[in-house]
Amino acid sequence: MDQSDRSVPQDGGAPLLRVLPLGGLGEIGKNMLAFESGENLLIVDVGLMFPTVDMHGIDIVIPDAHYIFERLDQVRGIILTHGHEDHIGGLPYLMEQGLQGPVYATALTRGLVEGKLREHKLLAETDLHTITEDSVLELGPFVVEFFHTCHSFPDSVGVVVNTPAGRVVHTSDYRFDPTPVDDKPTETAKLRRWGDDGVLLLMADSTNVEREGSTPSESTVETMLEKAFANAKGRVLLATFASNIGRVQQIINVARKYGRRVGVVGRSMVSNVKIAIQLGYLDIAQEDLLTAAEMEGLPAHEVVVVATGSQGEPTSAMVRMSLGDHRQISLREGDTVILSAMPIPGNEEMFNRTVDNLFRQGVDVLYHELGDVHVSGHGGREDYEHMLELTRPRFFVPVHGEYRHLVLHSRLAESKGVKKENIFILEDGLPLEFGHFSNHKSKSGEVEARLGTPITAGNVFVDGLGIGDIGNVVLRDRKHLSQNGFIVCILALDEYDGEILYGPEIISRGFVYMRENEDLIKRAQEVVRKTIKKRAPQQVMEEKIKDALANFTYKEIGRRPMVLPLVMEV
Amino acid sequence: MDQSDRSVPQDGGAPLLRVLPLGGLGEIGKNMLAFESGENLLIVDVGLMFPTVDMHGIDIVIPDAHYIFERLDQVRGIILTHGHEDHIGGLPYLMEQGLQGPVYATALTRGLVEGKLREHKLLAETDLHTITEDSVLELGPFVVEFFHTCHSFPDSVGVVVNTPAGRVVHTSDYRFDPTPVDDKPTETAKLRRWGDDGVLLLMADSTNVEREGSTPSESTVETMLEKAFANAKGRVLLATFASNIGRVQQIINVARKYGRRVGVVGRSMVSNVKIAIQLGYLDIAQEDLLTAAEMEGLPAHEVVVVATGSQGEPTSAMVRMSLGDHRQISLREGDTVILSAMPIPGNEEMFNRTVDNLFRQGVDVLYHELGDVHVSGHGGREDYEHMLELTRPRFFVPVHGEYRHLVLHSRLAESKGVKKENIFILEDGLPLEFGHFSNHKSKSGEVEARLGTPITAGNVFVDGLGIGDIGNVVLRDRKHLSQNGFIVCILALDEYDGEILYGPEIISRGFVYMRENEDLIKRAQEVVRKTIKKRAPQQVMEEKIKDALANFTYKEIGRRPMVLPLVMEV
Repeated sequence: MDQSDRSVPQDGGAPLLRVLPLGGLGEIGKNMLAFESGENLLIVDVGLMFPTVDMHGIDIVIPDAHYIFERLDQVRGIILTHGHEDHIGGLPYLMEQGLQGPVYATALTRGLVEGKLREHKLLAETDLHTITEDSVLELGPFVVEFFHTCHSFPDSVGVVVNTPAGRVVHTSDYRFDPTPVDDKPTETAKLRRWGDDGVLLLMADSTNVEREGSTPSESTVETMLEKAFANAKGRVLLATFASNIGRVQQIINVARKYGRRVGVVGRSMVSNVKIAIQLGYLDIAQEDLLTAAEMEGLPAHEVVVVATGSQGEPTSAMVRMSLGDHRQISLREGDTVILSAMPIPGNEEMFNRTVDNLFRQGVDVLYHELGDVHVSGHGGREDYEHMLELTRPRFFVPVHGEYRHLVLHSRLAESKGVKKENIFILEDGLPLEFGHFSNHKSKSGEVEARLGTPITAGNVFVDGLGIGDIGNVVLRDRKHLSQNGFIVCILALDEYDGEILYGPEIISRGFVYMRENEDLIKRAQEVVRKTIKKRAPQQVMEEKIKDALANFTYKEIGRRPMVLPLVMEV
Repeated sequence: MDQSDRSVPQDGGAPLLRVLPLGGLGEIGKNMLAFESGENLLIVDVGLMFPTVDMHGIDIVIPDAHYIFERLDQVRGIILTHGHEDHIGGLPYLMEQGLQGPVYATALTRGLVEGKLREHKLLAETDLHTITEDSVLELGPFVVEFFHTCHSFPDSVGVVVNTPAGRVVHTSDYRFDPTPVDDKPTETAKLRRWGDDGVLLLMADSTNVEREGSTPSESTVETMLEKAFANAKGRVLLATFASNIGRVQQIINVARKYGRRVGVVGRSMVSNVKIAIQLGYLDIAQEDLLTAAEMEGLPAHEVVVVATGSQGEPTSAMVRMSLGDHRQISLREGDTVILSAMPIPGNEEMFNRTVDNLFRQGVDVLYHELGDVHVSGHGGREDYEHMLELTRPRFFVPVHGEYRHLVLHSRLAESKGVKKENIFILEDGLPLEFGHFSNHKSKSGEVEARLGTPITAGNVFVDGLGIGDIGNVVLRDRKHLSQNGFIVCILALDEYDGEILYGPEIISRGFVYMRENEDLIKRAQEVVRKTIKKRAPQQVMEEKIKDALANFTYKEIGRRPMVLPLVMEV
């Protein structure tokens, strides 16, 4: 997709609206989006991502909000579309860095955000507002409306931003589901009405654009649950995402039908269920949940356990159970375990190992390869087509997807009638601008679009307490160390005559097993001694030692450890 | 599955046969199996595995053949069932370690093995024999027969070992395919005949036991290829496994039909295609293959390129093309790229990144999410049921699968009539023994089975030139280094008065970006100075420094680098 002919022209008027995708680790605009009009900023979502395998030692990845931090007084509002980590998890970190502004979220999303802010000691100073799908907010020049969407989180909303350039519909994560668990389908009537009135721009979730058809209803999972409960001889234990409150409700419903009661384990599951009950999102009383003693002690056919760990996360409740070291629950023969999720790409090894370990505990295991234990919270191609049909946008920007998804979604939009030249694939930090740019006014006086000048945006790494201090240099070192380990070679020379006073001492880790390679180390020391026979300035000697040891280790054992020489004169 | 009641009894006769799975990185017996009768060993396959993500810096994983090395004079033969890396790739490494014995393989497998042995300078000294599916070998007490199997490698064979205890059928990797590309279906007639005669033990591939039905015929890929070729406006470039000669032939066939010619790129693809042509496994002349200049220069609609890189392997031809830095081929708009493979679990990120980069080059991309670009070389549940029906074994050992696959395959065997007590899930190093063990002869005089005493077996890591020297200690260090980096703290004290002569010097990599953290390092040095104010023996001081720095870094920045103190007295 050659966009070079659509870059910023030097002439024309100022933009009426700029759309800024700010972060999402390759999934454009997933974690954070901003709309800018004049000196006004509206932010949608402040999420986080979990690192990919090549981001050694990184705990989480948050958006680079540099552009926002330089314009904090212009922030008119922060809207959170739903309570998943990739949409709210970055908020406390960015607020610690100074982000401020009124935050708007539906009740359950707000409930989860409050928990996070409390942990970070930011709750008191945050200006939180509860919205519903029928709220209308006037935030500077933006009039913001909402539509309820079906997603694997209750009370998810899409956002409609009425701007000086026109109406923007941003779906966030969504699917259509004619028979949702909570009887609240995605609000198609609203979408159609906006479509009738005219939509300037549709920004739409692209996650499942590779999947034909529409995503099956969440209710299909109920069929699987019914079957599993009917066949279960002992306890039923399920792992699912702690935020998938709809799934938890389904489990509670089926449990009731089969005369079983439900208990929950795992920190985030316990906490989310508690909040969901308090806010009326779960139809069960807190006191009706089984205690740990009851989950272990009641007759097996009366017990259901809902746990964290559907991805095989190392410290989760289900993984601990699979290894036989959960504090409260011991798996036993006759138990049925259901992993009600799909492994996220990159998690397959952890997931499969958990399934193996569960089988080793002698329990029966149901997982995605063996049945419909999960449906996606994102629509398929037919859902996406339906969204385009409802909104009929003039412009289209695929978001929430990696590059291939955006290309495929663009093609889909084109096939549904959006003009090819009105479709833009953005990158984080690459703005799309709307306004009247042409010297000669366009015939209809219609708003035009163009790519803006890239701004600083993208990803910031969090490692321990450090936010943004780890960059490519440290990551490259960590990768090098992970592959080959290191050698530090220390040598003290007499500052007067250059005689060796100490060393060469060799400290090494991750390179060879030192205890069984004393001979190799001795020969390495010999190499160093030979290298420094002729006295030279410290830095020259260190360079020579580095080269000599690198050559030696590669020739001897085919490895390239990091070599760090230190020659001191005392 | 509680097998404790089936362990070795102290009484009874010597086993007539021992079955020994020797390695496969969790996939039982995948890389190497042995049959033992008296003082005779028959080895089946000597493969290798690629490391999982937690095996930092490991290049490959080979079987631990300790048990064989102690009995080299007993090796009667080494049989290779087909030419995939996980069945032949370990051979040169184990031969370097001393493994010897006559090697038997079909022609193409032998061709690939010869290439490997040549690289390792072992070809001259290896006793290689070409077999066909109709060969019969007498190797010590073993009479070995073969049956042709369909798999994603031509001339794959299953092995039948007639032993003093009875007949063992070992499928190795296989599928049934009624319409294979080379018109050679799996030899069901032979299997049925052996089944009629009586099979003591079936050892069967479990890879796809999670998949319902039978694997679609390899010919279904041809339908996809035809459609893609019919729609292609420019060149067609395909990536597939270099060993999938059947797939390459299909591509050649379809190319001819559409008036295109084929070229190959990528070291292993070029080499495998050359061997396959020489040995008559590919219906094309070497001189009919396109040159690099022709692949770039001929009219686009005449060109097909077959390349390595179907998994997104970093140095492969297709990945270089996707990044625009292949030496010979430059992708251009209008090209169609087909990734004709499924990403292997653990490879998804690399694979997806390659698809994204291909789209960025402006080409059209077809991959598994968008069509039937690949079928598995392994059967599904129906294939496995068919194998059980044909062979009707008394005993069953599921192999070639991780634990969950073995459990599911065991259940399938039980459902097909194998007695539960005659099904054994083995581990690498856990032998299954056959013989007459009961004090009172079993009524029928039938051979019995029992688990033997575990032997040393499993995995050996290869890192550079080192085979087996990297163990858990080094891997743990590499993991630690990859997550947090390290700090080395060096201090030279006057041996007489304990005055600091040099340091504390702090060398660190992978912990923080040193240039931007001079203040942190200065404070760390201060911490060390405080810690050693009171003189103490060197070792005590080092321990104190280690603890102090570990506490300091965790408190300051929430990270736990590896801390290595060195206090020297000069």
